[in-house]
Amino acid sequence: MSSLLKSLRKLYSRTSSPNRTVPEKAPTGSEKLRLTSSQCDVLIIGAGPSGLMLALWLARMGVSARIVDKRTDKIYSGQADGFHARTLEILDSFGVGERVWKEGYRIQEFCFWNPDANGTLQRVQRGPDLIQGISRFSESILHQGRLEMFLTDAIAISAQTPSEAIAVEHCVVPTQLTIDESAVSDPAAYPSGMLKDLGRKKVQALGEDIMVGPREEVVRAKYVVGCDGAHSWTRKTLGDDYKMVGESTDHIWGVIDIVPITDFPDIRNRCVIYSKSDGNMMVIPRENRLVRLYIQLNKVSTCTNDNGRLDRSGISPKDIISAAKKIMAPYKLEYHYYDWWAAYQIGQRVGNHFSKLDRVFLAGDAVHTHSPKAGQGMNVSMQDTYNLGWKLGLVCRNLAPRSILSTYDAERRANAQSLIDFDQKFSKLFTEKPPVDAAGEIGVSLAELERMFKEGYMFTSGIGIKYAPSTITQAAPKGIATKCIPGSRIPSVTIHNQWDARPWDLHHRMPSDGRFRIFVFSGCITSSDSAALERTNALGGFIQDTLQAKYGRLTLSAAPDVHTNGGRFAGDTAQVSVLDVILVHSGDRAVLQPLQDVHEVYRPFDEKLGWDYEHVFVDDVNILNGVHSRAYENLGIGESGAVVVVRPDGYIGLVTDLEERSYVTLEGYFDRILIH
Amino acid sequence: MSSLLKSLRKLYSRTSSPNRTVPEKAPTGSEKLRLTSSQCDVLIIGAGPSGLMLALWLARMGVSARIVDKRTDKIYSGQADGFHARTLEILDSFGVGERVWKEGYRIQEFCFWNPDANGTLQRVQRGPDLIQGISRFSESILHQGRLEMFLTDAIAISAQTPSEAIAVEHCVVPTQLTIDESAVSDPAAYPSGMLKDLGRKKVQALGEDIMVGPREEVVRAKYVVGCDGAHSWTRKTLGDDYKMVGESTDHIWGVIDIVPITDFPDIRNRCVIYSKSDGNMMVIPRENRLVRLYIQLNKVSTCTNDNGRLDRSGISPKDIISAAKKIMAPYKLEYHYYDWWAAYQIGQRVGNHFSKLDRVFLAGDAVHTHSPKAGQGMNVSMQDTYNLGWKLGLVCRNLAPRSILSTYDAERRANAQSLIDFDQKFSKLFTEKPPVDAAGEIGVSLAELERMFKEGYMFTSGIGIKYAPSTITQAAPKGIATKCIPGSRIPSVTIHNQWDARPWDLHHRMPSDGRFRIFVFSGCITSSDSAALERTNALGGFIQDTLQAKYGRLTLSAAPDVHTNGGRFAGDTAQVSVLDVILVHSGDRAVLQPLQDVHEVYRPFDEKLGWDYEHVFVDDVNILNGVHSRAYENLGIGESGAVVVVRPDGYIGLVTDLEERSYVTLEGYFDRILIH
Repeated sequence: MSSLLKSLRKLYSRTSSPNRTVPEKAPTGSEKLRLTSSQCDVLIIGAGPSGLMLALWLARMGVSARIVDKRTDKIYSGQADGFHARTLEILDSFGVGERVWKEGYRIQEFCFWNPDANGTLQRVQRGPDLIQGISRFSESILHQGRLEMFLTDAIAISAQTPSEAIAVEHCVVPTQLTIDESAVSDPAAYPSGMLKDLGRKKVQALGEDIMVGPREEVVRAKYVVGCDGAHSWTRKTLGDDYKMVGESTDHIWGVIDIVPITDFPDIRNRCVIYSKSDGNMMVIPRENRLVRLYIQLNKVSTCTNDNGRLDRSGISPKDIISAAKKIMAPYKLEYHYYDWWAAYQIGQRVGNHFSKLDRVFLAGDAVHTHSPKAGQGMNVSMQDTYNLGWKLGLVCRNLAPRSILSTYDAERRANAQSLIDFDQKFSKLFTEKPPVDAAGEIGVSLAELERMFKEGYMFTSGIGIKYAPSTITQAAPKGIATKCIPGSRIPSVTIHNQWDARPWDLHHRMPSDGRFRIFVFSGCITSSDSAALERTNALGGFIQDTLQAKYGRLTLSAAPDVHTNGGRFAGDTAQVSVLDVILVHSGDRAVLQPLQDVHEVYRPFDEKLGWDYEHVFVDDVNILNGVHSRAYENLGIGESGAVVVVRPDGYIGLVTDLEERSYVTLEGYFDRILIH
Repeated sequence: MSSLLKSLRKLYSRTSSPNRTVPEKAPTGSEKLRLTSSQCDVLIIGAGPSGLMLALWLARMGVSARIVDKRTDKIYSGQADGFHARTLEILDSFGVGERVWKEGYRIQEFCFWNPDANGTLQRVQRGPDLIQGISRFSESILHQGRLEMFLTDAIAISAQTPSEAIAVEHCVVPTQLTIDESAVSDPAAYPSGMLKDLGRKKVQALGEDIMVGPREEVVRAKYVVGCDGAHSWTRKTLGDDYKMVGESTDHIWGVIDIVPITDFPDIRNRCVIYSKSDGNMMVIPRENRLVRLYIQLNKVSTCTNDNGRLDRSGISPKDIISAAKKIMAPYKLEYHYYDWWAAYQIGQRVGNHFSKLDRVFLAGDAVHTHSPKAGQGMNVSMQDTYNLGWKLGLVCRNLAPRSILSTYDAERRANAQSLIDFDQKFSKLFTEKPPVDAAGEIGVSLAELERMFKEGYMFTSGIGIKYAPSTITQAAPKGIATKCIPGSRIPSVTIHNQWDARPWDLHHRMPSDGRFRIFVFSGCITSSDSAALERTNALGGFIQDTLQAKYGRLTLSAAPDVHTNGGRFAGDTAQVSVLDVILVHSGDRAVLQPLQDVHEVYRPFDEKLGWDYEHVFVDDVNILNGVHSRAYENLGIGESGAVVVVRPDGYIGLVTDLEERSYVTLEGYFDRILIH
């Protein structure tokens, strides 16, 4: 073999999947470099935000996965840019949120501009771009390419060993997808075979550019997930039964990112500007002095095709800027730098199925498209795979039965439908004529817009998402933990460590690592009446003797030390039980002596590391600033306490009380979800 | 020449200084590889925290510098670990603080344990490890090696081009230091020649290990800074005039980092434990489940030398642990993992000179040594070079006269002396017999210890540092900005951006980039009485027409985008004036129209980037959480306002009012410090 050939082979096997690619048969002749076969648990098609989010989950949970993308570049400019509160919470659970939060532009205000009776533009409303207190995050704007880099970095540090690292394989397109339906129900089977095509590729070898490929590879995967965008090859390949249902639209949007030179006073705030007769515009300030302008072009562009309809291909940045100038007049708008622009036309549609036989799944734009006005696309797409990831992870690790997978379609399709319904109502408000500031009939529509915005925040922020009851989400009895709603994410409250008084965001105590959290809110366990303490310890005994005896030995790798600032020791084996038990009491921290007072399930002991000090917390005053965190109050928990089981994705699976009669409820919940 | 030789030459020129090493003379024979000469503005000897801090300043300010260290390793274990509030603020001004803050263990509480009347250990006091409200940071514990890595990373990203990057040159020892005294006063001269020795070094070339060196190089530097530790070669080389003055001590300290297995309840809090008759111990919890134990070994060790004195070389970790066990009894103490240990003996001494002819400077342990009890060493050492760095930077960039350099000795030597004085009083409290909890004569010493701790926090946190009046620090008239004290760091308050309502920590508006900040606290400029606005704009005119006309064209490179989340555009030329003007008003944000109302000096315009929106702020309510930040109140500024000039290191240089009579004060201040 020539050394050139050797180099190429070496280069090539690295380009595809390290350690997993094996020759299908003994190589013969020139064919030998071309046909290989491999297997992995999960094959992800598409490396945008939803594909990368899934890869990150699987990397954290130690599942073998591959992620392929037809694009040549890792990072591309423009496109999605809005990060809502829940998305930031989710990213934060992987240690990625803080990078977006630091670099992103944090929007504070939303303004409406409207022509007055004389047609002169004026600010008619200015208010907060959030509902106070719903999250520790608020809307933040950052270029999608940065996010993709952060996710890629996080995937890389998640690998336990370099050979396990999941890296995006670029310039790879899927060509065939088959499901062996006879093997679908066997958790150990790899029924989802497919072929992929490496495409023609320029390779540098020994100083020369050489064109290589195409080459094909048979990948046998347990699961395939199509995160391949609005024109999803995966969805189309699943056949005619897989449809996008909803309305198409003739609205064309122009969008451009510029560093504006303008005397418009609210250029650094999120704005909607209604002009008298030149259309409407949204202003979204972002990082690096940039501002994104969204303009609906229908009424302002002269680019029409032979049928008199607007022709998207004829639109240029000049058209967009020219429309923007008219809308913003009499304020001036110029620019020297621009970053990116586009013109697009998007229907409001949802896929009728989000999975096939719970072996092939669809996520993100592949199953929902809608307008960009509420900045939902990237957020909802990542939340799809955030919902799917831990389920696939537990099933592939043989910790949970395949039956939990059907909750993906149920939970996320319902959510996508809500999004479309919201978007339809919301969009209309922007395409209407300008509301008028003065009192009177047209003024109502401004009030309506404001109302929609405020109502919409719970939805658009992602905080309002509530999944319906299912195997993994059990409806709660009334009156226990009234602000912990099964199917919703557990609110973000502050708790204090019993041992060292450090304040913790509750969310930081539950990084995304595939574990269920059993939060025992015990009430006051330091009063002279010892009933609460006895109840707490009896429950501790049940958790240890029954739940942990059955399920406690199911282990996962601990997440990288994302937020615990001190919890992990380098010598730690870093294998953790799938059940994580946390006691949060409301008694007197100075009085409680955990080693004497509470059941050992709340203070795990390791013979090399000693006691684990991160399982007992208290609802208390912050010792350094004197402010009480009021965690019980913010969770709606009274003196009798509550048990709150949180799913690995932070959504509440079960709420019950600490009484003995509830043990069967707890046991039943885990019996359905985990493999004994 | 053999290819081996070629490889070595290549490797070698990389190991020393890229782009700066030139042959001294035409190479002849085997000598040609050995003797080179180069020049740089600043040569730093020693790459511990103080040396790296200086390198970071110089990198940010675009000054050519080299930093050499005799050690082979970048990162070493153990040693200093305590980060105090002011140190974290300083690190944060370079974008490094958040990494320490995230990984470090944030101590909340300080506890005292004491034998009771029966000799049984009991907790007698538990309180916050801080004075509330003095800083946004509190004490944080992290291994010095992590800090060194963070500083090294920050230095690397500060380079404008790769060739400018400052990288630590390891295995390099200085051998000779000369000063050409005739050239000392010429700012452009390089009077500080020296020789250095690359030492013997193992190099991998073509697969073989080869020993290379020693090799010598003549480095001609404008300035040399010795950050080379307690046994400073630089200090010794300066001659007998350079002495360490103070007391030596026979106190020997043992220190060990372990993952403890113990039932002692406060193992995750900072503690002082007095035993009845087995000595005293400090407990410092840290990251990665580690705990540091400090024990004074005099009374407990049996290792004495022939003279009956304690022999440090005979101490082993077993001695330290054995002493710790006795002190902690009846609580148990075991461990499986340990990270590092040491035994040392430190005097309390200060150098009598911190510089020679303002050409050679000494910093850190090279000019002050003291006990580790207050965790000051690394903090004070970094603050030395934080004080020196911007001064050297401005002088090397020819923006300031050499006369400002003498303030280094004045400011830091006084500070070191205060530290030693404090340490002497503080240390005694630990070497005394145990205080007794019960009321009575011995109980007083516990009260005394508590008082010392509380008083000491202003000092140990670094927040209380106040430099004396000098060229760069002008005593203030009374009654203006009562909490902005010249010579102290400007307090950390929150201000809100006028344009977009984003909350900013005032400190984030002044990253360490070598610039002076002129904060104009204008008072209310939106009332019907326009006097305040007129005064503000008249001052704006003076700043523009006089100060900026004289000094505004002195430029520096803008700091990397540490905190501005959005202020910088990639296309920006990133050259900024040495004078940064910031208006903070206390009027009605909704009423002010900056483009119409305020002088253009407060809203700089760039023809490619438009207006700069980061110069007008307001003391206002946070729009997302409803809390007023009370910046004026926290700075002690009343309705008549104040002008506060902040030095590049965050310390206040000048406080005055907005009246016309103060213009001469402002002009005089900059006339002394900047080069016209």
